[in-house]
Amino acid sequence: MKKVAVLMGSDSDFETVAETITQLKAFGIPFEARVISAHRTPYDAERFAKNARGDGFGVIIAAAGKAAHLAGIIAAYTALPVIGLPIKSSTLDGLDSLLSIVQMPAGIPVATVAIGGAQNAALLAAQILAVSDEALAEKLGIFKSEMAESIRARDIKLQARIREL
Amino acid sequence: MKKVAVLMGSDSDFETVAETITQLKAFGIPFEARVISAHRTPYDAERFAKNARGDGFGVIIAAAGKAAHLAGIIAAYTALPVIGLPIKSSTLDGLDSLLSIVQMPAGIPVATVAIGGAQNAALLAAQILAVSDEALAEKLGIFKSEMAESIRARDIKLQARIREL
Amino acid sequence: MKKVAVLMGSDSDFETVAETITQLKAFGIPFEARVISAHRTPYDAERFAKNARGDGFGVIIAAAGKAAHLAGIIAAYTALPVIGLPIKSSTLDGLDSLLSIVQMPAGIPVATVAIGGAQNAALLAAQILAVSDEALAEKLGIFKSEMAESIRARDIKLQARIREL
Amino acid sequence: MKKVAVLMGSDSDFETVAETITQLKAFGIPFEARVISAHRTPYDAERFAKNARGDGFGVIIAAAGKAAHLAGIIAAYTALPVIGLPIKSSTLDGLDSLLSIVQMPAGIPVATVAIGGAQNAALLAAQILAVSDEALAEKLGIFKSEMAESIRARDIKLQARIREL
Amino acid sequence: MKKVAVLMGSDSDFETVAETITQLKAFGIPFEARVISAHRTPYDAERFAKNARGDGFGVIIAAAGKAAHLAGIIAAYTALPVIGLPIKSSTLDGLDSLLSIVQMPAGIPVATVAIGGAQNAALLAAQILAVSDEALAEKLGIFKSEMAESIRARDIKLQARIREL
Amino acid sequence: MKKVAVLMGSDSDFETVAETITQLKAFGIPFEARVISAHRTPYDAERFAKNARGDGFGVIIAAAGKAAHLAGIIAAYTALPVIGLPIKSSTLDGLDSLLSIVQMPAGIPVATVAIGGAQNAALLAAQILAVSDEALAEKLGIFKSEMAESIRARDIKLQARIREL
Amino acid sequence: MKKVAVLMGSDSDFETVAETITQLKAFGIPFEARVISAHRTPYDAERFAKNARGDGFGVIIAAAGKAAHLAGIIAAYTALPVIGLPIKSSTLDGLDSLLSIVQMPAGIPVATVAIGGAQNAALLAAQILAVSDEALAEKLGIFKSEMAESIRARDIKLQARIREL
Amino acid sequence: MKKVAVLMGSDSDFETVAETITQLKAFGIPFEARVISAHRTPYDAERFAKNARGDGFGVIIAAAGKAAHLAGIIAAYTALPVIGLPIKSSTLDGLDSLLSIVQMPAGIPVATVAIGGAQNAALLAAQILAVSDEALAEKLGIFKSEMAESIRARDIKLQARIREL
Repeated sequence: MKKVAVLMGSDSDFETVAETITQLKAFGIPFEARVISAHRTPYDAERFAKNARGDGFGVIIAAAGKAAHLAGIIAAYTALPVIGLPIKSSTLDGLDSLLSIVQMPAGIPVATVAIGGAQNAALLAAQILAVSDEALAEKLGIFKSEMAESIRARDIKLQARIREL
Repeated sequence: MKKVAVLMGSDSDFETVAETITQLKAFGIPFEARVISAHRTPYDAERFAKNARGDGFGVIIAAAGKAAHLAGIIAAYTALPVIGLPIKSSTLDGLDSLLSIVQMPAGIPVATVAIGGAQNAALLAAQILAVSDEALAEKLGIFKSEMAESIRARDIKLQARIREL
Repeated sequence: MKKVAVLMGSDSDFETVAETITQLKAFGIPFEARVISAHRTPYDAERFAKNARGDGFGVIIAAAGKAAHLAGIIAAYTALPVIGLPIKSSTLDGLDSLLSIVQMPAGIPVATVAIGGAQNAALLAAQILAVSDEALAEKLGIFKSEMAESIRARDIKLQARIREL
Repeated sequence: MKKVAVLMGSDSDFETVAETITQLKAFGIPFEARVISAHRTPYDAERFAKNARGDGFGVIIAAAGKAAHLAGIIAAYTALPVIGLPIKSSTLDGLDSLLSIVQMPAGIPVATVAIGGAQNAALLAAQILAVSDEALAEKLGIFKSEMAESIRARDIKLQARIREL
Repeated sequence: MKKVAVLMGSDSDFETVAETITQLKAFGIPFEARVISAHRTPYDAERFAKNARGDGFGVIIAAAGKAAHLAGIIAAYTALPVIGLPIKSSTLDGLDSLLSIVQMPAGIPVATVAIGGAQNAALLAAQILAVSDEALAEKLGIFKSEMAESIRARDIKLQARIREL
Repeated sequence: MKKVAVLMGSDSDFETVAETITQLKAFGIPFEARVISAHRTPYDAERFAKNARGDGFGVIIAAAGKAAHLAGIIAAYTALPVIGLPIKSSTLDGLDSLLSIVQMPAGIPVATVAIGGAQNAALLAAQILAVSDEALAEKLGIFKSEMAESIRARDIKLQARIREL
Repeated sequence: MKKVAVLMGSDSDFETVAETITQLKAFGIPFEARVISAHRTPYDAERFAKNARGDGFGVIIAAAGKAAHLAGIIAAYTALPVIGLPIKSSTLDGLDSLLSIVQMPAGIPVATVAIGGAQNAALLAAQILAVSDEALAEKLGIFKSEMAESIRARDIKLQARIREL
Repeated sequence: MKKVAVLMGSDSDFETVAETITQLKAFGIPFEARVISAHRTPYDAERFAKNARGDGFGVIIAAAGKAAHLAGIIAAYTALPVIGLPIKSSTLDGLDSLLSIVQMPAGIPVATVAIGGAQNAALLAAQILAVSDEALAEKLGIFKSEMAESIRARDIKLQARIREL
């Protein structure tokens, strides 16, 4: 199976990104996680991105905050699908991260998920790989069913809480 | 090759979405375009989404404006990757469309592109299919090179305009 | 009397929604509370909504956060009045929830209350039922009077605090 | 049948509000339309609101823009359900109107529809009256079906446009 | 000297408004503070506003949060200058309060100060009264000088802190 | 009677500010209008502000757009009440102008009116002068009555338009 | 004198950027203008930036819109001062461009000017070069004086327009 | 070497601004730090700015929050480059500070850094001085290399954390 790259602009993003990794592991998807910054290690970003397909990657997740350029820059150097994960920072509540990632100009898309949507970044990577991987597609189907069952279980618990009100 | 579905919540979105279709055609990617509304034809949305993989689709693009629920609802019924394309409406400059599409809760990702980013929706779909399709990946590489050449040609033209200033 | 449905997209919303239920109980309005998710249990949402009128419901309150599609999807499947209650989430201070709920396209209204306006959701449901229920209308009148009295009592207490300044 | 009041803060709002009236007429719902301003004719607003139930009204729609206080003030004087319709003004794209109407404090709800959502204001009023009016409920059901048919017809036309691309 | 009225929509606003009162006292300006709600005690708001000039008030300060209608409604019933003080609430960081107060339609101004600008509301009231009151104008001049001196003292202290860095 | 100063940061603001002047003239309030820029003619701004009271001014209106510092800077040099009029510029729809004017720090208030609220700036100036001027207060009362009559006349015209629908 | 580089992400930005160039010419500052895209010609951006100091540039102006990464990426590859000029695009009124440029993470500053502030980008470049260039500093002083005179001339013209009102 | 001035509108800003000073010291750049307020000590601001070049300053950093006029006012009185540092205040998450600083009108630029970007303000000042100072330019080059090394060290540490997951 192709690997998923999980890049983060700063190691402080790991607090959020850990959830991405946990989910990839749960699906048994091979991955590599890296601290690579569009602004502080631009040569590393370039090198990683242009070799990514050759290095066996199928999807790249890029997490960054504030003027979050990492996903866009990675997408400039590769035609692999790039998933952008906006990190909430200490001001503006993540709006800057979101707009810096999602509002890409024509020609260079970034597949953006919600601010702090770390689990969804992994799920989207899995969905992309599953387009041509029936076994992974099946795992995603099971994940969806279990999620529904979990909601139904919570619904039942709610009934108990309501009666106690 | 798997097909791309291009759904729009209203036929008035076609003005924007036409660019998506033009780009898919340019890559020779098979597609189907549909007017399907999460709110006005919810049963059709459900039916389309749950059969999509079986019907030969690999990626679904969903374009909608305002409280844009189409992409999220399609993603609720399928585990295929869903690309959300926010349409700018007459108020709030597309911010409502963007937030309604991108801020999905954990478990159900939508791969969101820029407000009005119709060409990028097609490019992202192509990138997703190209993960396991070398021929398409090559086309994307050529697209990237031509885009760079086009920028360089414009740079040369700019020099002439500058001299005339 | 017709029942009020109180749906929430996640059981974590119950913290906010409890106030809705307390207010419905205070008016003696029959209700059912459910955890139903537009994205994680879409079939349950559909089934609930299309049977709601037949099941004796008069009004449906739907609480959700982020890309909050629950109220809109319920409204897609029923012509009962649907009250949307935006839940403040961890980013964007509830603006995403509000816009995702209130900016519904033509044809499918959602009666939206303030971000976190859980008590008001119940009061609005009561007002709707009271259009054809004089006894409930009277209760609402008394509620209004008591609220005014409470403000006046606080005004009197304020005078004491001012004198002590 | 109870009447619907359609109040607007300025006669310039009529351009938007006309659609509300057209929809009420289409359903055969009796209505009165009035120019009443929370700020310029506050005594008239008060008088209208406190007599509304006695005067045979079941629902009040209040349209206003900018610091849009009309819906909230009407709701202060009556316990009838009040629907707030935010009008887009020349600055801030309607965000001020929306927040001024929807963010009501606890105790006094306003059922807010989208910025400029004039048709939806009428539909919501109809849904509220239909809670206890089976004939009107049936009309709403037919409206929903016709809306779905209209979307399907547009979907068919789209196929033709696509073939011509 | 004419009195200043300090109205607040809820006694929870007193936490912020206390600073207004402290400043009025410091200038020796007579005042009355009241809890009066545009939505919960609209008749009291009306009565207070229309009698205010006759009751010896020269300026009215109205503090409120969320869909903050108090200042606008008071201004509807009196031609005295009304100062609007937006209170930050639990969502949207005070933007809703600010827009609901400042964006008044033509004909009914509200003199708006910063979100939470409680001291400034008092200073503005003092400035208004001082237009025709030389003694108060002199106090304001002294206040300004002392403020400048305080800044200069802090500048000197800063130099010490810098040396210790 | 004391004069009103009407300052604007750029002569392009006159398009908006003309309405302020028309309203001051209608009330017979003496005024002077000036193009003075906080950034381009700061010495003129300083000189004007510090002499304003001595020069017979009672109120200063300052109109500016974008990073609108004029009102705040004038208020730094005088203790007269300063009314800030935010001008909508070509980007951000006036939000920058509004926040730059209204969010003044403690100690230096600016009485802010709506974005583009040129007539209201004049009305507020009149209200301030009327605190100690019964004749002007009476004019303001008449203005209010005429405004109410105008609304009522429009209400009557609306009834005719409705019948023709 | 060191040169100023004027980079733009797209030749469509030239409409705005022309004003930058006109101002640089007016000061006699040598410059080069280039169309270089962070996303479409990333290698060119890299090459330009890392050679810029050696190639005789003293300041780099980078204009871009939407998810505007150009200024940040240039700043990643050079320690020359980089001025970011946000271009207003067709959605979100330039807020996305502004935040993408100004909210740079610690370590890599971008000197950001107003949305569409093309003349100011040139003035800031001139101010930077003038730190060590007395002749240019003098030109800037004259520019400032002329600007003040222009405002004063407009003030005089305004007096005539006022008399004609 | 020319000095850098570090002005702050309030001594409470020192908490943020300390980082600016630490960075300037690390580069051995001479500086003076001052508490000077555009609104509370406008004469001091004027005097400081107009003498700044003569007093040996090459760059001025101005930090302020809310309606942050300090940078703009300093820039009005000097043609030295002025760096604006927006301070996050208790409401609106720093958006007001940012817009008040960055959206300067044509003629008077302010080089704006991120909200709370205190280190970057110092780095930008260093970059400006380094245009004509090779030794400082070299220090900036070393700073950039060390920053890259620090990122790479964190990348290596991340690999260990990943293995432990």
